[in-house]
Amino acid sequence: MKNLTRRDALKLASVGAAAALQSSTLSAVESPRTPTPVWEVFELVLKRPSAETPFPSAANPFIEAQLTAAFSLGHRTISVDGFYDGDGVYRIRFMPDVPGLWRYKTQSNLPQLDAQEGSFQATPPLPGAHGPVRVCNTHHFAYADNTPFFPFGTTSYAWIHQPEALQRQTLNTLRTAPFNKIRMCVFPKSYEYNHNEPALYPFERGAAGASDFTRPNPAFFRHLEQRIADLLSLGIEADLILFHPYDRWGFATMTPAQDEFYLRYLLSRLSAYRNIWWSLANEYDLMRAKSTADFDRLFHIVEAADPYQHLRSVHYSHTPYDYAQPWVTHASLQSSDFTAAPAHLAAWSKPVCYDEIMYEGNLNRRWGNISGDEMTRRFWLGLIAGCYVTHGETYLDPTQPFDENSTPTLFWAHGGPLKGTSPAQIAFLRKLIEETVSPANAVLGPVRIGLTAAVNPTYLNATAYAEDGKQAQTILYFFDFHQPIWSDFQLPPGVFAAEWIDPLSTTITPQPGMFSGKATLRLPGHPFMAVRFRLQPPV
Amino acid sequence: MKNLTRRDALKLASVGAAAALQSSTLSAVESPRTPTPVWEVFELVLKRPSAETPFPSAANPFIEAQLTAAFSLGHRTISVDGFYDGDGVYRIRFMPDVPGLWRYKTQSNLPQLDAQEGSFQATPPLPGAHGPVRVCNTHHFAYADNTPFFPFGTTSYAWIHQPEALQRQTLNTLRTAPFNKIRMCVFPKSYEYNHNEPALYPFERGAAGASDFTRPNPAFFRHLEQRIADLLSLGIEADLILFHPYDRWGFATMTPAQDEFYLRYLLSRLSAYRNIWWSLANEYDLMRAKSTADFDRLFHIVEAADPYQHLRSVHYSHTPYDYAQPWVTHASLQSSDFTAAPAHLAAWSKPVCYDEIMYEGNLNRRWGNISGDEMTRRFWLGLIAGCYVTHGETYLDPTQPFDENSTPTLFWAHGGPLKGTSPAQIAFLRKLIEETVSPANAVLGPVRIGLTAAVNPTYLNATAYAEDGKQAQTILYFFDFHQPIWSDFQLPPGVFAAEWIDPLSTTITPQPGMFSGKATLRLPGHPFMAVRFRLQPPV
Repeated sequence: MKNLTRRDALKLASVGAAAALQSSTLSAVESPRTPTPVWEVFELVLKRPSAETPFPSAANPFIEAQLTAAFSLGHRTISVDGFYDGDGVYRIRFMPDVPGLWRYKTQSNLPQLDAQEGSFQATPPLPGAHGPVRVCNTHHFAYADNTPFFPFGTTSYAWIHQPEALQRQTLNTLRTAPFNKIRMCVFPKSYEYNHNEPALYPFERGAAGASDFTRPNPAFFRHLEQRIADLLSLGIEADLILFHPYDRWGFATMTPAQDEFYLRYLLSRLSAYRNIWWSLANEYDLMRAKSTADFDRLFHIVEAADPYQHLRSVHYSHTPYDYAQPWVTHASLQSSDFTAAPAHLAAWSKPVCYDEIMYEGNLNRRWGNISGDEMTRRFWLGLIAGCYVTHGETYLDPTQPFDENSTPTLFWAHGGPLKGTSPAQIAFLRKLIEETVSPANAVLGPVRIGLTAAVNPTYLNATAYAEDGKQAQTILYFFDFHQPIWSDFQLPPGVFAAEWIDPLSTTITPQPGMFSGKATLRLPGHPFMAVRFRLQPPV
Repeated sequence: MKNLTRRDALKLASVGAAAALQSSTLSAVESPRTPTPVWEVFELVLKRPSAETPFPSAANPFIEAQLTAAFSLGHRTISVDGFYDGDGVYRIRFMPDVPGLWRYKTQSNLPQLDAQEGSFQATPPLPGAHGPVRVCNTHHFAYADNTPFFPFGTTSYAWIHQPEALQRQTLNTLRTAPFNKIRMCVFPKSYEYNHNEPALYPFERGAAGASDFTRPNPAFFRHLEQRIADLLSLGIEADLILFHPYDRWGFATMTPAQDEFYLRYLLSRLSAYRNIWWSLANEYDLMRAKSTADFDRLFHIVEAADPYQHLRSVHYSHTPYDYAQPWVTHASLQSSDFTAAPAHLAAWSKPVCYDEIMYEGNLNRRWGNISGDEMTRRFWLGLIAGCYVTHGETYLDPTQPFDENSTPTLFWAHGGPLKGTSPAQIAFLRKLIEETVSPANAVLGPVRIGLTAAVNPTYLNATAYAEDGKQAQTILYFFDFHQPIWSDFQLPPGVFAAEWIDPLSTTITPQPGMFSGKATLRLPGHPFMAVRFRLQPPV
């Protein structure tokens, strides 16, 4: 709990706890020295001996103990916060990023937790584990091991707050859906079509339902962690939304000290999960109790408390946050104005994620009823512009009564099955994009991560380059509502094969011949088509 | 030829003509005193007697005679320019705008043409004649008799320069097409897919093909007039483009004096046709030999020389002209950014015509290959924004070789048949829009001309109001790519019937019930739909 002063901590405590500190009777029990693969979670468990006296009822074990551990390998030392997990158990989690013998030593204001030492062996990463996602090549992303990551996100704000069977159905949907990132909230959601109470609350609640913001509910956080781990096992990044305005429980109106306590507790539990992204808020500008300066401060708290520097952004409703700020790793837009993409990319020199482009569905709301083809079209427009796009779905059962006070199962908030037509089309697009960097398709060695959008093109197009950034490997054209029967293409050096790509019917039709220089290609003459040129191996 | 000084006129003459003036032997023959209906053309013909000596070969009869006539009715006097029509004939054309006995008297530097007097009876307009189109109700148009005019324009830049059989086919197409305005050029066009020579040239040409810009070709202008008259008989306004950059004959690079001579000659011939609109240029900003100040000056010439003050605008490629200038009656945009419409309407307080929104077709050019559905969608977006939209079509026969140096029949330039799917959909929309002011549909008396677009609507909608501007009569909603299965509508006072409108399949499906106040309407749940609410008579 560094940066949170003792005075702050006392303010947070609902009862005076200073006396209790002296009488606490914890003692440490080391975790087994299991070897832990790189990018998995090593957990150090510190327990008070069961025979000893429990905390005095007036004490708050979430507050009293300040606990960190320093993990060292060679000359590197990483300081990691611990947390109280209830039932007399403290935990410290650590995600090693290189193999080797990591040594640790705890530090605490409680003598029983202080100066605990040990070590563990970090082994090479498990198959399929690539580490946390980072910014790579300015406007793009890659895992820590440099494997490209092209975000194809979806949205399910409150899926972890639904009945268990529905959550399992959501995970089952995600198992075969084309999405590798999900925008989801820590806190439950109170909004139109979102009226049910969650099974678990993030803080202890009194008889009248008021939260004690000094006492996190370990069961809530264990559940959240289980869902993060479930997503990890599916290869899905959790774009975790830390605050949002759609609240009836008081989570949107905590004090600055409560916000900080919550963030530090959350980060001490979750930072060691490699598939975490931090989204400071959904629609931060609709949170009336917080100013932009408050969000600057919350960003700094997250930046300081996260030993792994997971990706950080914030999402808006009307007023974009200043994505040029150095503590923001990428932009998270609510927009479908892809004509602004070149300016955004140039201005921010960061990846740009169009995280809310309206949802495929049939809702009585403008933001929740675009057609599946329009959703897919927006994915193409965004990708071809050199950005990334996030899906969402809001299909009402048309036989249900029209009632915003109901809580139907809309994937956007509740999860469950996907009903729309865009996911299959997005799967097709994802495969096309991932193929641009596939070693199998890179005829001249590795391909640079990410597509570079053309400037002032006749038609929208984006190119994947060889690692030197010079030799174009794959060029994707998207014709949107244009339907030419032929077009000239000024191709970069090399000999290219051409394919017609139908983004809606998800078909690929190879075209006869090879193309180079100023090439003329016959086109199908109907709208919403694409063309792919792929460099051929030198003869 | 007022405002053109004698010195200018001499400069224009390719040969010295001062001596010839003294020896000319014209004498006037009055036109028959036929009664002429209001808004038709009265023509005064002045001939030199056939027995007399022709002009000396060195003389230029287009230059020597300055000829005007003053037409008077009661206290009003309108000065009208005459013109030389070849074969020793001068003509003065006049379009009366009110019935009565109009007296006239000519004025000329040539004694034989000077002081010719007479009168004619202007009778009530012919059935179906409503006069020239004017701006009405700030952002809209009406004929002189206040009959609403909603422009549903098309484009055929060079149709009058094609073989006669093709011109007749174009007129035949227009007879049943939904268009009541056509953008067309005076001068022939030299561009990709436009390589044929015209049958007639606007000026006399020497053996080497150079034009004598002081000697208009009367046959050319008579042909142009015939086409204007043909359009008039079909109820179509001629949005006549006076200059354009796509030229290989020198018409785009005449001197300022030649430009003025051409304009005065053209206006003296055509102004009396009631279906004329003046478009100073197509893509004025691509005419490298002219500056914006040149166009200001050309506007002033047209403004001063047109006794009837026909509508005046100019069209651009990249840089909009300043449509706020008082000499511009309406905006003529090359744009499909309808989100800018509210700002344009507010800034200019004039009608806004989206005159080039790309063309329905399959060309190898981005501007010439949008789908028919996209063309129709743009008509809806424009109309619902309170503006007007112009169609164009560029369909190549896919079996033709791909060759921009060919001259296929593309309606956009050459006329001929229409091949696209949008005209039938535009016809449907035109009927819907015209019904908004139809007396048969106006349950509370006349309806104000034009649709007023809603500000910050949930969905795009536009309303037709009763004449007092208060009582909403018809409200049209367009849902674009949205596909709600229901929506709330905050209706204005009154009881409304509702219909589903399908703009693409052109069907209307009445919905059960009556609606008022905050009304909930079930919607079809697929994209590109519209809804119409119509006020019902008070019970």
